[in-house]
Amino acid sequence: MCRWMAWMGQSILIDELLFKTQHGIVDQSLHSRMGAEPTNGDGFGLGWYGAGEGPGVYHSVAPAWGDENLRELAAHAESPLFLAHVRAAIGSPIQATNCHPFRRDRWLFVHNGFIADFHLLRRDLMLAVDPTQFAEVVGSTDSEVVFHLALTVGLESDPIGALERTVGLIESVAREHGVTAPVQATFGVSDGECLWAVRYATEGPARSLFASADVETLKRLHPDNPRVQRFTDGDRVIVSEPFADLPGAWQEIPEATAVCVRRGGELEERPFEPRVEAPALKA
Amino acid sequence: MCRWMAWMGQSILIDELLFKTQHGIVDQSLHSRMGAEPTNGDGFGLGWYGAGEGPGVYHSVAPAWGDENLRELAAHAESPLFLAHVRAAIGSPIQATNCHPFRRDRWLFVHNGFIADFHLLRRDLMLAVDPTQFAEVVGSTDSEVVFHLALTVGLESDPIGALERTVGLIESVAREHGVTAPVQATFGVSDGECLWAVRYATEGPARSLFASADVETLKRLHPDNPRVQRFTDGDRVIVSEPFADLPGAWQEIPEATAVCVRRGGELEERPFEPRVEAPALKA
Amino acid sequence: MCRWMAWMGQSILIDELLFKTQHGIVDQSLHSRMGAEPTNGDGFGLGWYGAGEGPGVYHSVAPAWGDENLRELAAHAESPLFLAHVRAAIGSPIQATNCHPFRRDRWLFVHNGFIADFHLLRRDLMLAVDPTQFAEVVGSTDSEVVFHLALTVGLESDPIGALERTVGLIESVAREHGVTAPVQATFGVSDGECLWAVRYATEGPARSLFASADVETLKRLHPDNPRVQRFTDGDRVIVSEPFADLPGAWQEIPEATAVCVRRGGELEERPFEPRVEAPALKA
Amino acid sequence: MCRWMAWMGQSILIDELLFKTQHGIVDQSLHSRMGAEPTNGDGFGLGWYGAGEGPGVYHSVAPAWGDENLRELAAHAESPLFLAHVRAAIGSPIQATNCHPFRRDRWLFVHNGFIADFHLLRRDLMLAVDPTQFAEVVGSTDSEVVFHLALTVGLESDPIGALERTVGLIESVAREHGVTAPVQATFGVSDGECLWAVRYATEGPARSLFASADVETLKRLHPDNPRVQRFTDGDRVIVSEPFADLPGAWQEIPEATAVCVRRGGELEERPFEPRVEAPALKA
Repeated sequence: MCRWMAWMGQSILIDELLFKTQHGIVDQSLHSRMGAEPTNGDGFGLGWYGAGEGPGVYHSVAPAWGDENLRELAAHAESPLFLAHVRAAIGSPIQATNCHPFRRDRWLFVHNGFIADFHLLRRDLMLAVDPTQFAEVVGSTDSEVVFHLALTVGLESDPIGALERTVGLIESVAREHGVTAPVQATFGVSDGECLWAVRYATEGPARSLFASADVETLKRLHPDNPRVQRFTDGDRVIVSEPFADLPGAWQEIPEATAVCVRRGGELEERPFEPRVEAPALKA
Repeated sequence: MCRWMAWMGQSILIDELLFKTQHGIVDQSLHSRMGAEPTNGDGFGLGWYGAGEGPGVYHSVAPAWGDENLRELAAHAESPLFLAHVRAAIGSPIQATNCHPFRRDRWLFVHNGFIADFHLLRRDLMLAVDPTQFAEVVGSTDSEVVFHLALTVGLESDPIGALERTVGLIESVAREHGVTAPVQATFGVSDGECLWAVRYATEGPARSLFASADVETLKRLHPDNPRVQRFTDGDRVIVSEPFADLPGAWQEIPEATAVCVRRGGELEERPFEPRVEAPALKA
Repeated sequence: MCRWMAWMGQSILIDELLFKTQHGIVDQSLHSRMGAEPTNGDGFGLGWYGAGEGPGVYHSVAPAWGDENLRELAAHAESPLFLAHVRAAIGSPIQATNCHPFRRDRWLFVHNGFIADFHLLRRDLMLAVDPTQFAEVVGSTDSEVVFHLALTVGLESDPIGALERTVGLIESVAREHGVTAPVQATFGVSDGECLWAVRYATEGPARSLFASADVETLKRLHPDNPRVQRFTDGDRVIVSEPFADLPGAWQEIPEATAVCVRRGGELEERPFEPRVEAPALKA
Repeated sequence: MCRWMAWMGQSILIDELLFKTQHGIVDQSLHSRMGAEPTNGDGFGLGWYGAGEGPGVYHSVAPAWGDENLRELAAHAESPLFLAHVRAAIGSPIQATNCHPFRRDRWLFVHNGFIADFHLLRRDLMLAVDPTQFAEVVGSTDSEVVFHLALTVGLESDPIGALERTVGLIESVAREHGVTAPVQATFGVSDGECLWAVRYATEGPARSLFASADVETLKRLHPDNPRVQRFTDGDRVIVSEPFADLPGAWQEIPEATAVCVRRGGELEERPFEPRVEAPALKA
């Protein structure tokens, strides 16, 4: 359920990756191969940095494959950093406020996966959201609450640490409610400067997640692919599942791992270790 | 912001009142005369009792005046009891989960008005909702929270009493937050057997609300109106603002008043007296 | 591309067949097994005879599987005769006016298949539509033009004959434009009294089409299926692909065949023989 | 019915004019003052030149005032030339293919007004469209047919002349059908280099149309308006009705007049004289 992708690098027309790749995210809305469901037709979202103040967000409840406005927007907006997400709803309503990316100020957030038995945990988790931000939660997804929890425990100063504390908090609340294996997730986060991604599940295999190889490797592997040859140092793609036309160009992000991509394309990897912190629990 | 109507009486095609009256609710979506705004184009809702289990609910984010599906549904569904609502959003998203009527089991609820500074009160009010029902609040309106508060404090056994306790609770929470004049409301409630309506504002004039005169009076007033001549004893309409083609046929429901319409069309009126009860506050 | 079903028999709640069967039409919107595409998420339509004047029509551009209004309507509308259709768009816009069933007066029409190279033929075919009805063609599908051609050449007095003349006309126009194998179709038609269905392709296998066995056979085959046991003489279902929970209960409608179901459930079968008639060509 | 605006000048964020002006086009969707209807809530369209190939087009069936995606797009897209349009449907369906601007290649077209008794004329007018382009007419508005007629008779080489021939053709066809006063129109056209506008009605006052004064005048009139002070030579706005915060800054475009704005902001005015040309009629 759900697939996402993120681009960081040179400024490109967004449709270059959304529509013009083989098995890009829009194709995955109709024919996902590695996701929990082949069809991700319950909404689309794009968050992009570019002209104007902060990131723009486009949310649609129409399936991505048939959304003409998305096609137009993608073909006429350039961006050096964007995140796109296709949704397969599992119970929660199909509405724009349930579409990713979620945004506050300069921050964008996407999630593939779920909080198990979320209806049992929702009240306690929403109580842990900063009370002054409570009214900002306007949809009904688990993902939006995860984002606001992460903001509450410091996403803006320490993204990965805040997600570790958030997941720790969720696992702790879940334990109290007798919910096992509560967190299944890949996360994508950006502030317009860096791009962070996480792959983690409390139990069992986490949803798939891949990063593109460094640009030199890509070019060597695909000397005849004009799109790849236009890549420059510092271009990096993170995807739920690889584009089909670039075999060998992807490195799987291991389980329980966080990565950070900075300007220049450097990819840092570190373990993702959820933990419960006293202050977080009190919040 | 918002207009609503309710019908209780003989089983009729719904469009008889939605589309075929002069200045019916659909016309009010485009040209409200007595509402806070002339345009109520931010969504429509219809709840109707008839075939099938419990009431059906149709919610649309399209303006009522141009919604072909609504026109079709209304022209092909018969019902002895229905509520319809047109919405003018004031800040909260235009989405189906924010459209009235709200429903639980056999119960329907509509609201015209607002909770002032709802963003300040939302957390405390949601905490007062029965924790086992917390996850059922899936939209972001004040009205949905009001409905769930009323359910928490006994709507299903004592509708008007529960609304009095709910309004009392809201006024009490508002006082703690320094919010004055928090409640502006007309409410409509039904369980399929009876129809309850409330007109109340903490301060100042409440939103307009009218009940149709008894059928004998209607027929005497409008001997040439074929629609009226088809009315039978027991038919009753409650409206935010009167249909234009029935002058003299409406009695204004006074401020701070609740009415109850039972099968047979009898209209009982009583004062609406918000109050804070200890158990309600604990809930 | 596209799947449809039709019910004729006792009056039932529509969701009994749309949602409560295994692999019913709504499930086929997400997981078609015998269609040209597994996903039919580009719009839904329902036409039903029941309360009110003529058939009601519900058209939605949202995928059927996630459409709450459809779920509500189907659960609260009873009908002795209805047609439902899920759409996989092939080029033409996703909009309500492109959703089936198409309607004129008491007549409903659905189509699964396509007119090959329709953009080459559209002008000539629209010129063959009765000029006084030209402005009624408001969408951009081949199917809507087929319906208006059939109306032009006598659908209302001789449905199968009119469809034979329509297909003959299309094949003739196609020949002039050098288009081979122009017609791929199953059609469903009703006037509220009878139900007609056609399976035909100019070349190659036509889209799949099945009729339910007579009720006695159904009951003998499925003694433990409570839905089947509620069937009465005269109940008949026509489907693009069978419901999964009724093995052995379906008879395939042969290629180049038309069937007619009348009140009582009797199924008449005859060859479908497209032909060009001078008057039709002149029209 | 309908309002539109066009910007040509320095590259600006689109929301600067759509949302940040007083009584801009989005406000006119809810509160038009000079239009035939106060509410223009039946769809929105934006066509903008900027990044990517040719103009982008955003069409929405939601009312402009509540469309979050429009707000986002406008706040994050820069353009030196764009046209925006709000629609009040008069009979034709509310669907994206009926939203303006219409586009072919680099050309955009908007229309405020109507072809009287269009249902009587539609067939003859569509027959006059270049047969090879017939299948490109995918909506059901008069405006789309006008655009394709204009393309047929030379819009791309002589925009005003082609519109004169188009209007002449329509008036001629209308006469044959006994339709008087067939054309009520303001038109806006662009190829990304120039901006053309027309104000014309066969009879009676044409819809309102205004051009902004030259930038020097604007600055002198509004020394304290920071938006105006940011204007540079060559900035020009064409609007159905003036923004409210710039009194004295607008010149009404006379009836039966065409204007052309070129890079640099120069505004040329000429009479608009519909005429019938033999070749056009044959087409």
